Amino acid sequence: MSLHKSRYHEVAAEIQLQIEQRIWLPGDRIPSIRKMSQIQHISPMTVLKAYELLESEGWVYAKIRSGYFVSAHLNRLAIPKQTTPQMINRAIKINEHVFDVLKSCKRPDIVPFGSAFPDPSLFPLRQLGLALAKTIKTMPVQSAVTELPPGSIALRRAIAKRYIRDGIDVSIDDIVITSGAMESLGLSLMAVTKPGDTVAIESPAFYGVLQTVERLQLKAVEVATDPQLGMSVDALMAVVERHDIKACWLMSKFQNPLGALMSEENKLAIRDILVEKKIPLLEDDVYSELYFSEQKPKPIKAYDEQGLVLHCSSFSKCLAPGFRVGWVVAGRYAKQVEQLQLMTTLSAAVPNQLALAQFVLHGNYDVHLRKLRRLLAGRQQQMQNAIELYFPSETKITRPEGGYFLWLELPAHINTANLLQVLLDEHNISIAPGTLFASDNKYQNCMRINCSYAWTDKTKRALITLARCIH
Amino acid sequence: MSLHKSRYHEVAAEIQLQIEQRIWLPGDRIPSIRKMSQIQHISPMTVLKAYELLESEGWVYAKIRSGYFVSAHLNRLAIPKQTTPQMINRAIKINEHVFDVLKSCKRPDIVPFGSAFPDPSLFPLRQLGLALAKTIKTMPVQSAVTELPPGSIALRRAIAKRYIRDGIDVSIDDIVITSGAMESLGLSLMAVTKPGDTVAIESPAFYGVLQTVERLQLKAVEVATDPQLGMSVDALMAVVERHDIKACWLMSKFQNPLGALMSEENKLAIRDILVEKKIPLLEDDVYSELYFSEQKPKPIKAYDEQGLVLHCSSFSKCLAPGFRVGWVVAGRYAKQVEQLQLMTTLSAAVPNQLALAQFVLHGNYDVHLRKLRRLLAGRQQQMQNAIELYFPSETKITRPEGGYFLWLELPAHINTANLLQVLLDEHNISIAPGTLFASDNKYQNCMRINCSYAWTDKTKRALITLARCIH
Repeated sequence: MSLHKSRYHEVAAEIQLQIEQRIWLPGDRIPSIRKMSQIQHISPMTVLKAYELLESEGWVYAKIRSGYFVSAHLNRLAIPKQTTPQMINRAIKINEHVFDVLKSCKRPDIVPFGSAFPDPSLFPLRQLGLALAKTIKTMPVQSAVTELPPGSIALRRAIAKRYIRDGIDVSIDDIVITSGAMESLGLSLMAVTKPGDTVAIESPAFYGVLQTVERLQLKAVEVATDPQLGMSVDALMAVVERHDIKACWLMSKFQNPLGALMSEENKLAIRDILVEKKIPLLEDDVYSELYFSEQKPKPIKAYDEQGLVLHCSSFSKCLAPGFRVGWVVAGRYAKQVEQLQLMTTLSAAVPNQLALAQFVLHGNYDVHLRKLRRLLAGRQQQMQNAIELYFPSETKITRPEGGYFLWLELPAHINTANLLQVLLDEHNISIAPGTLFASDNKYQNCMRINCSYAWTDKTKRALITLARCIH
Repeated sequence: MSLHKSRYHEVAAEIQLQIEQRIWLPGDRIPSIRKMSQIQHISPMTVLKAYELLESEGWVYAKIRSGYFVSAHLNRLAIPKQTTPQMINRAIKINEHVFDVLKSCKRPDIVPFGSAFPDPSLFPLRQLGLALAKTIKTMPVQSAVTELPPGSIALRRAIAKRYIRDGIDVSIDDIVITSGAMESLGLSLMAVTKPGDTVAIESPAFYGVLQTVERLQLKAVEVATDPQLGMSVDALMAVVERHDIKACWLMSKFQNPLGALMSEENKLAIRDILVEKKIPLLEDDVYSELYFSEQKPKPIKAYDEQGLVLHCSSFSKCLAPGFRVGWVVAGRYAKQVEQLQLMTTLSAAVPNQLALAQFVLHGNYDVHLRKLRRLLAGRQQQMQNAIELYFPSETKITRPEGGYFLWLELPAHINTANLLQVLLDEHNISIAPGTLFASDNKYQNCMRINCSYAWTDKTKRALITLARCIH
């Protein structure tokens, strides 16, 4: 039952949509419980539950004896503008701070706003455990050898089926299974570059990109990126004209840290630029299943006719954190990636591959995903509403349509790396400071907030503390 | 019961030892069943079983009505001499053939003499499956995050305990868990070198070394290596005097492919050379548990007082193939290795780490290992005896005291890469040609044979076919 939206959820969603569409403005009184019950032909109790839900998420507030009013603070904060990196070609030096932030998020007492991982309790770990146990019982002993790269054929088949269902033509042979998306991205980048080469990346970018670029001794041009639309088409065009770009790395969907979702038009435009210059695209699509819309947005890979796109994803963010199983649809580079993997980790863990194949094909994977999306969408909304309520009015905030990150641009004088120190030392709260996401101390007044955790009193208190520290 | 040697095993082992010590020479008649039964105060049936075991392993043969005779062919073949690579500094280009060989060994119909992996049926997969299932049921949901590098504390504790039991002082913080030993070696080499640097390696060397050196754009000097004693101390001394060596990679125990076991004297001498020149040592010790002697040989790491040795190993060859869990005791480089892992695969699979910790601490790990060693020792002996019997007398063969590989030097005109082609095409047999183990087509007349599989009629027929093709 908990897997299906009940009636009061529907009513709440309807009113929420009306608020978003500014049919009801901040301060407006929404229809009384009695009136709404008549309009909708539902019981007053259902309306009451809907209103209480809206109140708990910060959409409305109750005034005693007067009814429910649209919260005054909603959408008060602006969305950040497109970034303006220098777009010069240079070596990348990562911020050592990344390691401290990741470490700090491991502390069990911490409120992990800085975490890169979704709340682990969102995942069907018990069911996966059963699949794993069953797999091992029936696994042919030879599997340890036969499932070498490119990986379990059962899992590759399960993955290929999902691509095809999404309208993307992928064959089993195009897929290489890896030890998580981090490996698939690293191997892909290694397959298409050599030390000294230059790659185009987003700004801000997932720090894993910066680390990989540094580790492989590459150089990078950080390209202007829009918090809503992702990497700027014009900026990329200018960059490939000016520099000898050997590869481009981007996220077209729910970009980390901005949450940007590229328009179909921009996806095509970026594809055209890269095809024109024969530049391979590493499309990092680890949040592909975490969309809040009805329709699943397509990756650029869907428009790849030349095998130039290496599409990387994994189960770590949507199903099985800790299993370390990812993949890359490597197009014309599949062979190279496969060979590189043989030289680096040999293979992803075999029982884990087989158990995931089992779960994806025969488990309730889609049911799990629907529930996960709904939970993440609700938690993001709650976090946004709270930020709208408590943060300084100069704060800018993203409104992603998927994933589980918010990107905040704070007043210019605030240094979020310093802020993190205070938060860790005095309040057991972590954040991901903006400087993690660029190479030259950019985004000092920005931060990424993880909003995948349930909205509890502790979370709320932590957010208020964070807001107070900023004020 | 099957876990303990029975009396007839002991009798057989005793006679085998006498044959090895040349108390009984080829052609000699060993005592009759009745006589031996009197000497040893055991039943004639026990003696018969012992003699049958010796016969099945090729030590003796029966002549009807005459008794049992020591096989004429034993130790007929010489051991290969120390190798003589050019020891020049150069870029490494791996033999693409490696990928074909590894692929061919995946075919279920093949007799996998070329395989790099031990027979998977040697491992307690069902017990591991139970450990895995149990682990997942009780695993805290946060584990996916908290077990990030350096890895599960439970597993690192289990590993540290075993080092300490072996008399090697290792703390939990020195250990980084990786996705198999291949990753621990790759990350270790990355931690201590940069592109263009030169490393000293064995000749012949495990092809994974050559691949990693190539992938990291390093150069290598291949150092003369003895089939019995491993890397030559004198040769290494000359090499470090002549070249600017930034790291040395070797296997002190059951070297792949030679099976060499370094003497304690040589281990100390090599340590001294490296300490003198401050050269970090990557000690690949994946076969450390697969010794045939009573005492477990120590690695060079045991003599490492300066933290210069990065000791890499895994569970893939001794307990859990396909789990992809290895580690490195990284000494003074632990922090760098840990950070590199965060950038490449993030972490080994979490449930697998926890299940292994469980099994190593509370399972019958040592019982399993004892049984495994006995089986491997017997299978190697059987394979050696058969090769002695069927192969040309100019063949040279190693006699390793551990692991599961034999290295054969065939008459000079034989090209084992061509031989492999014939074997694959016409006979469904694989071998690992010698050229896989060096960078310049050396060892064309050599091959590595996997002797971890049970000695069946099929195996025997395959070996005879192989011998016939060589003749």
